[in-house]
Formats: sequence, structure tokens, C-alpha cells
Amino acid sequence: MQDIFKYIDEHLNDSIASLTELCKLPAVSAQKQAIGETAEHVVGMMRPLGFETQILPKTGGPDTAQPVVFAELRGKSPKTLLFYDHYDVQPPEPLELWTSPPFQPTLRDGKLYGRGVSDNKGNIAARVAAIKAWREVRGELPCSLKFCIEGDEEIGSPHMEEFVEEHRELLAADACLWEGGGVTWEGLPMVTLGVKGLLYVELTCETINRDAHSSYGTVLPNAAWRLVWALSTVKSPDERIQIAGFYDGVRPPTPEERAAIEAMPQEDAETLKSFGIGKALAGVTGVDYIARHLFEPTATIDGLSSGYEGEGPKTVLPARAMAKMDFRLVPDQDPDDILAKLRRHLDSHGFADIELKTLGGERPARTPVTDPLVAVMREAIRDAYGSEPFIVPAMAGTGPLYPFVAILGLPTADCGIGYPDAHIHAPDENIRIEDFLRGTKAIAALIGRFGK
Amino acid sequence: MQDIFKYIDEHLNDSIASLTELCKLPAVSAQKQAIGETAEHVVGMMRPLGFETQILPKTGGPDTAQPVVFAELRGKSPKTLLFYDHYDVQPPEPLELWTSPPFQPTLRDGKLYGRGVSDNKGNIAARVAAIKAWREVRGELPCSLKFCIEGDEEIGSPHMEEFVEEHRELLAADACLWEGGGVTWEGLPMVTLGVKGLLYVELTCETINRDAHSSYGTVLPNAAWRLVWALSTVKSPDERIQIAGFYDGVRPPTPEERAAIEAMPQEDAETLKSFGIGKALAGVTGVDYIARHLFEPTATIDGLSSGYEGEGPKTVLPARAMAKMDFRLVPDQDPDDILAKLRRHLDSHGFADIELKTLGGERPARTPVTDPLVAVMREAIRDAYGSEPFIVPAMAGTGPLYPFVAILGLPTADCGIGYPDAHIHAPDENIRIEDFLRGTKAIAALIGRFGK
Repeated sequence: MQDIFKYIDEHLNDSIASLTELCKLPAVSAQKQAIGETAEHVVGMMRPLGFETQILPKTGGPDTAQPVVFAELRGKSPKTLLFYDHYDVQPPEPLELWTSPPFQPTLRDGKLYGRGVSDNKGNIAARVAAIKAWREVRGELPCSLKFCIEGDEEIGSPHMEEFVEEHRELLAADACLWEGGGVTWEGLPMVTLGVKGLLYVELTCETINRDAHSSYGTVLPNAAWRLVWALSTVKSPDERIQIAGFYDGVRPPTPEERAAIEAMPQEDAETLKSFGIGKALAGVTGVDYIARHLFEPTATIDGLSSGYEGEGPKTVLPARAMAKMDFRLVPDQDPDDILAKLRRHLDSHGFADIELKTLGGERPARTPVTDPLVAVMREAIRDAYGSEPFIVPAMAGTGPLYPFVAILGLPTADCGIGYPDAHIHAPDENIRIEDFLRGTKAIAALIGRFGK
Repeated sequence: MQDIFKYIDEHLNDSIASLTELCKLPAVSAQKQAIGETAEHVVGMMRPLGFETQILPKTGGPDTAQPVVFAELRGKSPKTLLFYDHYDVQPPEPLELWTSPPFQPTLRDGKLYGRGVSDNKGNIAARVAAIKAWREVRGELPCSLKFCIEGDEEIGSPHMEEFVEEHRELLAADACLWEGGGVTWEGLPMVTLGVKGLLYVELTCETINRDAHSSYGTVLPNAAWRLVWALSTVKSPDERIQIAGFYDGVRPPTPEERAAIEAMPQEDAETLKSFGIGKALAGVTGVDYIARHLFEPTATIDGLSSGYEGEGPKTVLPARAMAKMDFRLVPDQDPDDILAKLRRHLDSHGFADIELKTLGGERPARTPVTDPLVAVMREAIRDAYGSEPFIVPAMAGTGPLYPFVAILGLPTADCGIGYPDAHIHAPDENIRIEDFLRGTKAIAALIGRFGK
């Protein structure tokens, strides 16, 4: 691999230049900006490497889902690695908090700043750079590669499940490398194997046709009270979710997943300190904190609104009340099933009048720690970083992993160029050039080892 | 009384002109507008009738409470009737909803429109007109009269209790006529004998120093959840308030109070219909509805706010949550006592972290149905209206009655010029000229009978 690594080292400036060009395109999916242009630009990065490319529409819904860039290149081995990425980015706002303009990537102190440099254009550029090194140094690739690059991941990957279903054969592979990943605060590499699912709902209650003077509290039903009572039945103060059957689908962590988190760095004290508190929920610390964070589902109130919210007193009995809630789900919970159970819970507790509107749903997915892909990635990372990666059995967050794991049946993991201070989704998004370089080498090593 | 009534009839235009002049002054206490000017104007209405007047500052607090107009006139009998009124008005906004400008009183279809024409300048003008009739027709008054006219009732009568305490001797009287009152939808006169008290609080909760990504729902405390749980312990879905000792001070209605509400018009079906519902809380109807509405205390959530309240989903774990609550209190509940009990309730239920801020407090007060004042008012109203009044033992609302009833020891009741469609506190505030005329006569009759 040293010849490949040497090429990557020597062509680092070219790779950064290529990333910079890609990041100049303001492909903000939430604002439907520069999407087509960016898809074409990505195709333009793939073709010179020999990839056959297609820009495929997403179907499955009446909304304006953005097209997917698909690319494929045969290698020596018929074994195929599928890269999942996305070419869209988060909105750059608030602009005034950027040190340099978000769409004019700028190098400062060994870091490149700009929207998308980490999430996820930096990973696209690193993967392209690794492939280029193989092509230039060795010619043929050791394995076959495919890319599936979405244009609206940042708005929740609409219709991705239908897209994968529709293109099962095109996307067929032996493993999938997910979009993100990177190193810990101490610079140690991580490999992440799964995501939580999500059910996002809005609960609304309307008791009377207009707000009333609060002296009517004697006789008129108050929407805020009804919502408070309804919510209070959903989770008890001991943090146990009270929806019947909520925990039925929860698959307990395997011994190997448990062993993996026991090897992970324990950063609970630092995390709690940064939020100004001394104790986690349920008083968990160390491995128990990690287990709770990665393996337990949640029920979160994201927002509450009712009646008078301004300064001072106003004596009003609210006609309407609203709560936003999300449930983070773990394998094998299903957002549709949880929604049905929540509806039944409200009905059976006397809250049939509370309306539920679904604002989002994704299924959880996890690749086993024991999958052969993990062993291959472990070796590739050792090649590139000179150290063993931490294996993270699942993120606490959510992403569109499920169709790749469940529909395509692919073991799926990530390793990438990020670090904890990358400010993704925030002003001054950045990468450290050293992480970009090592992340590129890890991809190159993985391509090499995956073909064997 | 016919000579006096005749004078009132013949000088109706003068009385309306006098009310119109008073209503041109935009004495909006919330905006500290035209307050001094209006106090002087009221003094100018009293002096020609022979009243000795004073403009007295309120003391007792660092804020800018507005001065009180005090006026006194001796009559034949040493028995003294004290009129409580206020010369300030509610803000006129939203201006675009007024048919004619709020501070240019306008006659249309037998009604006078303008801010304050009903609440409370109309009552000041009617009282002045009744006194003028007595002075012009008979010379000496049959009883002694005092006025206590506040300048900031519409912002909650700050420091009124201290003011009354400080001026006990000046305000000494045998009975107090309260500011409001009027007729039912059917035009039948009412006499109201009390008010509920009020405790208004803001509950706030802060669990972490900034909002977190909602994936942290596993380990970080959520302010919205804590507030929901805390509130849910305060009142149960059966509408029973769960604060220990909350109902201790509640004095059950007397047989006479019960008899009074049995004679009242039953308007529950119309009220519920206007709010778009068919059933009151606890399913009460008729007399039970009135009893619940007038004699029971309440705990109302007036507002809720936390986290993300905008369109669509945002996965955020809120650091802060806020609720506004008011408790309407009945004799002999005390807002300070209820506040202390609420604090103890929260502490003992594990919510010592929820902060309480008091935004308002008034004590309840009620004059017994059996008080001799009620009999006198009954007769005076019969004189003016030719029909018996309904005796309303208490309002469901709140006002600064307590210092007059409890500190000065005065039986206190109202009868006035209002009607249910007067739009007080709202655009197109109005009075019907016929109500103004009969209300003026009722005051004149009361002055006559009170002196006997």
C-alpha cells in the first residue's frame, strides 16, 4: 500500500483543490439550490476515473425529491463495495457567524473551512482521491465499486426506501461504506455500525373554538391541561416509556456489541460538563452511559406551545395546545408500529381528542460487530492510522441506513474524515487536513483489502 | 323620586355630553397616557357638585402607581356611601377593528361607542349625573358620599391594599358601591356581591445550559418533560386540584347564596354553544353550573412554551420550559398561602428545580346576600327598573374588592350601566343609552334610600 499512500501524500493539494471546487457549489437541498449543477459536477469527478454514471430520479412521491448520482466501475475482483454519500448540504445560515464565506472554502491553520467540507463533500472528495491513487498507481482496481450519492439527505432522504427497492439490482453489492465517520477528540479512528430510527409526531389538541377568559376554568375544557395530562402518561418521571408494547421490538445488545462499547472511550463526564450538569439521567456513568445512549430508545418532547407565551400575566384559557415529540428507535422497533401504539395509548387513556400528525419516520438499522466487513475495516484502518479503531455498534442519531442494510442486505459501516469539532450543520464547518489525508488513505486501504 | 328621575330624563343629553368629554381623554394606564390630565378632569366634574377633592398618590412600592382621585360631600344623613371607580381604560388596540375612533365617542343606533364608555367612565358619568339631579332638584343630598377613583385598575390596581390601609379614616363609610354592574342579555338588572381572588404564577424549568440534539434524550434531562410532569401533579384529569391544603380555605356557599343562584338565569347552554361545545366540565348544568362557576376555585394553565414551536420537525431537546398559571380563589383562600402550598407541593413531588415567579395576586371577597345593603339596593333597583334584580353572590372574575370589604369592613355591591354585549376591553366598546339612563336612575334611587 505504500506506493498508493505515497501518491495520496504527493497529490494532497490536488485533492483539496477538487474538494474546494465541489464546495463552491451551494447545493442547499432545503432551499432547492444548485442541485442539478452539483449532481453534474459529481458526475464530472467520477467519469475521468472510468466510472459509468447515471443521474437517476427518485420516484415514489408527489414531492420534488432530488436525483441520485449513481456510478459504477468494475475491478479485478467481482466483490463490490457500495459507497453511500450525499452531494447536498445544510443551509449556511446564520451567515454572520462564519469567519470566511461558507461557499468560498478557505484554508486556515491546517483546516479547511466551508459548508460541506466535512458533511459530506469531504468524504466524496476523499473517496475520489483514494480511487484516483489506485487508478494512477496500479491501473485496475482490486475490487468493483459503486457510488450512490443522494441530493436531499439533509432534508430527510425522502423516498430513499422506494429508490433502493426500485434499484435493487443496480445497487447490488457485498458491503456498503456509509457517508460519515472520523476520529474521537483524541484523534483515534472509529468505525460506526448503525443508526437509531425515528418517529417524529406533532400532537395537537383543540377543546373550544376560541381562547376564553381564564375565569371560565371552572366549566370550559383547557387544551393545555389536556395536552399536559396526555403527555404525562407517555413517559413517567423515572424515564420509562409507558406506551403498551413500546419496548417489544427492542433487541438487546449482543455480547460482542457490549464488548465493543466497553472498549470505547468514556466521555460522559466531559459531555455532561459541557451541558452544565453533573449527572446523567438514571445516574448512569461509563459503559452504562454508553449503553443507555446507544442502545435505548427515547421519547423526547421537542417543543410545547399553548396560550399566552409573552411577558407578564395574561389570564387566558387556551383553546389550542401543541407538542412536538420524537422517538428514537432501536432495532427492531418500527416507526409505523410505534405510531399505532401511541395512538392506541392516547385513545385508551381517554385522549382520543388529541390529534397526531407524523412529521418523519425512519427505521433503525445495525450491522453486527461480528460481520466480516468489520474485520476488513479494522485492518484497513490499522494500515492508514497505525492504530486500532474503536468499534461503535450504533450511533445515537438517525440516518437512512435501513434500506441498505435491510433491503439490499448489506453490512454497512462508516469510516471518514470528520472529527468532533467539525461544526457540521453549523457556521465554520471545517476539517483538519491531517484527518482528510488519513481518511483518504483508510479508504484506499479498504479498497485494497476488500478485493482480497 | 319622580322629580329626580324627571330631571335625569330631561338632562340625558348633558350627561352623555359629559361622558363624551371624559372619554376623549385616552387614559391608558398600561401605556401611562393622559393619566394626570384625566384625574384633573374628573376633579373638574366633582367640584361643581360641591365635592371637596384631593388627588392622592399611591405609596407602598417603587413602581409608578397612578394617583387616586378622592372626593367627599356631606349630606343630610351622616350615613356615607363610598363609590369605587377608576378613570383609566384598557389600550384601544387593535385600532383597525373599531368602527369609529376609540377616543372620539360616537352615537349610533341608540348606543355610544368609545373606549371607556362602559368600563368605567360610563359609571363615573352616571353617578355624577345622579348626584347632579339630587343637587339641582333637592339641594342637599340625603346621605354623605365619597368617591375613590383609581388611575390604574386596568393594570391590576397596584398598591391598592396599602392605599386603603393608609387612608382608612378618609375612606371610612357605611357601604361601598363597586364600579361595574348592569343587566343580563334579557335586560334584567343584576346586583353582584363579590369577586374571586387570583394567584398568577410563571413556572420555569432549566435542565441544561443550552438546547441539545434530541438524540441526547437518553442521558440529558429535558425541561419540557420536567414541566409536564410537574404540572400533571397539580391538577388531575378529574379537575381536582392536588395541592395539599388547596381547598382548606374554601368557605361553602351559604343557604342564601345558594338560593340566590337558584333564582339566576341559566345561560350555560348558550355559553357552551358559543364556545362550540355541548358539555361543561364535570357535566354540570343549570344551578350546578352556576355554583361551580361562581363558588369553585380553579387552576388554569394560561400558557406553555418550550423548545421548537415552528413548522415541521426539529429534533431538539429543550433546555428551558415555561408555563403560566392562574388560580382563581374563593373566600377565604389567600394567594400568599396558595403560593406557599404550591411551592411545597412542587418540592415534595420532586420538582424543587421548577422556579416560581409571582405575576399577580388578589384576595377574594364577598358581601353576604343577607347584608342590609342588598335589601336597599333591591328597592332602589325596583324604583329605577320596575323589576327585581338578580342577586349574584360573586363574579367568576377578579377585582380589587378585598381592601374595601376586609380592611374598611364595608358591604360592597355593584349596579351599573353595562350589558353583556358592551365589548369591554375590546374594539367597539359601547353602552346602550337606555341602560345608561336606567343605571343613572338606580344610583339616584340608591342615594335616596341609603340616607333613610
